[in-house]
Amino acid sequence: MASPPNAPPTTWPKNAWYVACTPDEIAEKPLGRRICGERLVLYRGQGGRAFALEDFCPHRGAPLSLGSVRDGDLVCGYHGLTLGCDGKAVSMPGQRVGGFPGVRAFPVLERYGFIWVWPGEADLADPARLHPLPWAESPDWAYGGGLYHIQCDYRLMVDNLMDLTHETYVHASSIGQKEIDEAPVTTRLDGETVVTSRFMEKISAPPFWRMALGGAGLPEDAPVDRWQICRFSLPSHVMIEVGVALEGHGGYQAPADKKAASIVVDFITPETETSHWYFWGMARSFAVGDAALTDTIRQGQGKIFSEDLQILEQQQQNLLRHPERRLLKLNIDAGGVRSRMLIDKAIAAEQVPVPVDA
Amino acid sequence: MASPPNAPPTTWPKNAWYVACTPDEIAEKPLGRRICGERLVLYRGQGGRAFALEDFCPHRGAPLSLGSVRDGDLVCGYHGLTLGCDGKAVSMPGQRVGGFPGVRAFPVLERYGFIWVWPGEADLADPARLHPLPWAESPDWAYGGGLYHIQCDYRLMVDNLMDLTHETYVHASSIGQKEIDEAPVTTRLDGETVVTSRFMEKISAPPFWRMALGGAGLPEDAPVDRWQICRFSLPSHVMIEVGVALEGHGGYQAPADKKAASIVVDFITPETETSHWYFWGMARSFAVGDAALTDTIRQGQGKIFSEDLQILEQQQQNLLRHPERRLLKLNIDAGGVRSRMLIDKAIAAEQVPVPVDA
Amino acid sequence: MASPPNAPPTTWPKNAWYVACTPDEIAEKPLGRRICGERLVLYRGQGGRAFALEDFCPHRGAPLSLGSVRDGDLVCGYHGLTLGCDGKAVSMPGQRVGGFPGVRAFPVLERYGFIWVWPGEADLADPARLHPLPWAESPDWAYGGGLYHIQCDYRLMVDNLMDLTHETYVHASSIGQKEIDEAPVTTRLDGETVVTSRFMEKISAPPFWRMALGGAGLPEDAPVDRWQICRFSLPSHVMIEVGVALEGHGGYQAPADKKAASIVVDFITPETETSHWYFWGMARSFAVGDAALTDTIRQGQGKIFSEDLQILEQQQQNLLRHPERRLLKLNIDAGGVRSRMLIDKAIAAEQVPVPVDA
Repeated sequence: MASPPNAPPTTWPKNAWYVACTPDEIAEKPLGRRICGERLVLYRGQGGRAFALEDFCPHRGAPLSLGSVRDGDLVCGYHGLTLGCDGKAVSMPGQRVGGFPGVRAFPVLERYGFIWVWPGEADLADPARLHPLPWAESPDWAYGGGLYHIQCDYRLMVDNLMDLTHETYVHASSIGQKEIDEAPVTTRLDGETVVTSRFMEKISAPPFWRMALGGAGLPEDAPVDRWQICRFSLPSHVMIEVGVALEGHGGYQAPADKKAASIVVDFITPETETSHWYFWGMARSFAVGDAALTDTIRQGQGKIFSEDLQILEQQQQNLLRHPERRLLKLNIDAGGVRSRMLIDKAIAAEQVPVPVDA
Repeated sequence: MASPPNAPPTTWPKNAWYVACTPDEIAEKPLGRRICGERLVLYRGQGGRAFALEDFCPHRGAPLSLGSVRDGDLVCGYHGLTLGCDGKAVSMPGQRVGGFPGVRAFPVLERYGFIWVWPGEADLADPARLHPLPWAESPDWAYGGGLYHIQCDYRLMVDNLMDLTHETYVHASSIGQKEIDEAPVTTRLDGETVVTSRFMEKISAPPFWRMALGGAGLPEDAPVDRWQICRFSLPSHVMIEVGVALEGHGGYQAPADKKAASIVVDFITPETETSHWYFWGMARSFAVGDAALTDTIRQGQGKIFSEDLQILEQQQQNLLRHPERRLLKLNIDAGGVRSRMLIDKAIAAEQVPVPVDA
Repeated sequence: MASPPNAPPTTWPKNAWYVACTPDEIAEKPLGRRICGERLVLYRGQGGRAFALEDFCPHRGAPLSLGSVRDGDLVCGYHGLTLGCDGKAVSMPGQRVGGFPGVRAFPVLERYGFIWVWPGEADLADPARLHPLPWAESPDWAYGGGLYHIQCDYRLMVDNLMDLTHETYVHASSIGQKEIDEAPVTTRLDGETVVTSRFMEKISAPPFWRMALGGAGLPEDAPVDRWQICRFSLPSHVMIEVGVALEGHGGYQAPADKKAASIVVDFITPETETSHWYFWGMARSFAVGDAALTDTIRQGQGKIFSEDLQILEQQQQNLLRHPERRLLKLNIDAGGVRSRMLIDKAIAAEQVPVPVDA
């Protein structure tokens, strides 16, 4: 169904693939989750495929996410109304369900280790628009990650990730170092991707990267060249190439055996105007068979990213209290500012009125 | 005092006896509780009788429920203003209280093991309108019960209890069984009582009823006939005759030594538009001297009824989010639908405008 | 800056010194606290002096109270914007901050063991208007105290402290006794101070005062004369002279070796319209070198004052539910009533419109 003309503007594009959950979250039973303002029940239905329906039983309004799956259909946990994967009523004990209203079904894809949902117009849902993640399907890469539920506008997280200057202050004991905010940052638009880069030469690696150098079989104390290349793409994905190379071997371009390189993976899924689901992780191309290292990295990254929570949530509260304030937009903020321009453009494109007689 | 003309409609009748609390709740000190939107202090006053006053000290507004009882009068716990059981000021140290405003007193009855309050017009409070509970005064019956505070409209609980189809889904491990939603249900109006009945023949008893058969000295594994007869009466009482009889002895009509029969007792007292006090219990006519069985049944019933809490509270949240949705009204919903019709009729009768010059 | 003409009335005067915190609260790191509706960051800056700025970083809106102090300047914990004690930007890595907006700085004083802030017009902040506390700078007095965060209008606490009748009811087991509400109370205005007094003769001391008598080296069981002299002064300070003297030695006027006398110290700092910071303590002129006694008194006082919390917070909730109710104003309420008159007069004086062309 098309958005009604004059629908109120939202703070996110709806016609896009968002990460809704990871497969383990629906392995045992249905999952209720709000995505882009829509309350969904996510579950494995017919053929073991993932599906998403509106989380509202048309019988008495109970959340379908409290129900269960039987023979691939979703059974309401209150009185047993059973819905198919298309949201239509299939059966109910003692009832003829032919005339029952259904619920909205949302397009779902499962790929790259995530369940993706399209909260907008189903007719426009195109698997080709899924963000490609080649590392996720390559045996040359390993991945580990987690999920945080954060009480702030998802765009504050985009800002955070597109300006890593904050590492010096928020993550001083792990990945922060003085050289970060001393190094110049450049921001550019590469097609539909905002790219913010920072390169540091001949520095000493901070604790997290010492650990990674050790994991990659390289000396932890050697001087290194370090890089951070942040890439924002719609609707709200930020992939950050990060790494350190032994000094003088070409930095970002250094051969694989002279560096520890990885991609910080960030899928930022809006829940409400002031909250989001943050799927974070790290994909790496070194020591890919070392599961213990994957765990160590995940724990380290999880701890580091938890340091952002308090500041982001309190920043949100401060902004809600002072809606009239204009914030500064410095050169270090260019990554976030440009990313928001892409978001605003995508939202505006969805607001084009649909002719009433269409 | 009469309701003002054009008073906003409420979701409950006010001129009725509601269960306010059980005697143990006011044994030690006054109790503050909101009933039908009114904040009350309940306490034992003159002659050990139960009384209910508005929970607001006319001196400085402190809740009277933080006070104490002295010589049958209620003493405010802040500065000692003392009120009689009629809500009038009796004394205060160093003050003449003759001109002090009083607080509203609500009619109260104590009977059948409960404290009942009449939140509406005191002039209309008639003890004869108290719901008769003959089992509560008979030595041939035993009773055990409890209290839950539930965050949903009390009418959702009425719906729940007047359609036991949900047992199959919500209480699958205790009293639910597939035969319930396969058996036809009939609903009828019997005077001012809505009656919904369901009978199942030659089935195997689910776990709760096996326990009850054992408690009644009958074989737990024998095939049984089972019945459920739900009776709603105003303002919001649901009495459910339930039981199992050894198969072929007449089911509901079977002689006492061939069955385990009881009455599920439900007093559903509105607190706000979206919350209520749920006094639940079970009265039984077998093994009435077995106090350990009373405890076992209470624990089992308490656990079963707690399974409804999550679904009712989340159903309420879903309905608040979607006030525009029309729910289905199926034949299984007839008990709740008809009960609400009685409620609506009682509310409407209270809304009749009082002539201004009356 | 002057208040805008037609600014909405508040419930507190802004041009006054309020206790903001104690020195230990800013010893380790900055403190975020809301005072009279203003969110402040309090910290030790240049020269070790205490300062207060608006708790909002002009860069991206993060709370400055999550930051740190470096070389006497306040560094935002998100991206390192550094502010001077006047609220102006001092530096930021890689930025020229000359044109950056600053934040509001609030006048601060440190004296008498407290950090005081002036939430109103900085131009009017006059150290001479600080409430004098001679005992705080005298070697003949000892002091101990604490801080409670209370969810009620600060004026309800003023009422509470200006009418000690409540001790009989709220503090029955420590300082309350029947003689309090039997003794007449007198209230008068002494310049800009409201004074409420109560004297009791030849009574037996309640538990708290027995402990104090023992601490002062006097017999705990002797009959005593007792006094309570409450003094309210703007903006919301209540100093209460309390004590007991061995009977017949002149009561309040008795020589020092015949009495245990102290000053209950109450600084009541508004946070919002319905919450406040309550700095309480006791200054005494007996056994001043006995640190263990200071601790014992602090613990006893802390316990007694915590008894007020529940009743004050529930009184607030009751008043919010019934804004239409007129409370009684008895003779015992005269202290609170007159104190509110001083408060209202001070607020009104601040509301005088400033000529637009001034």
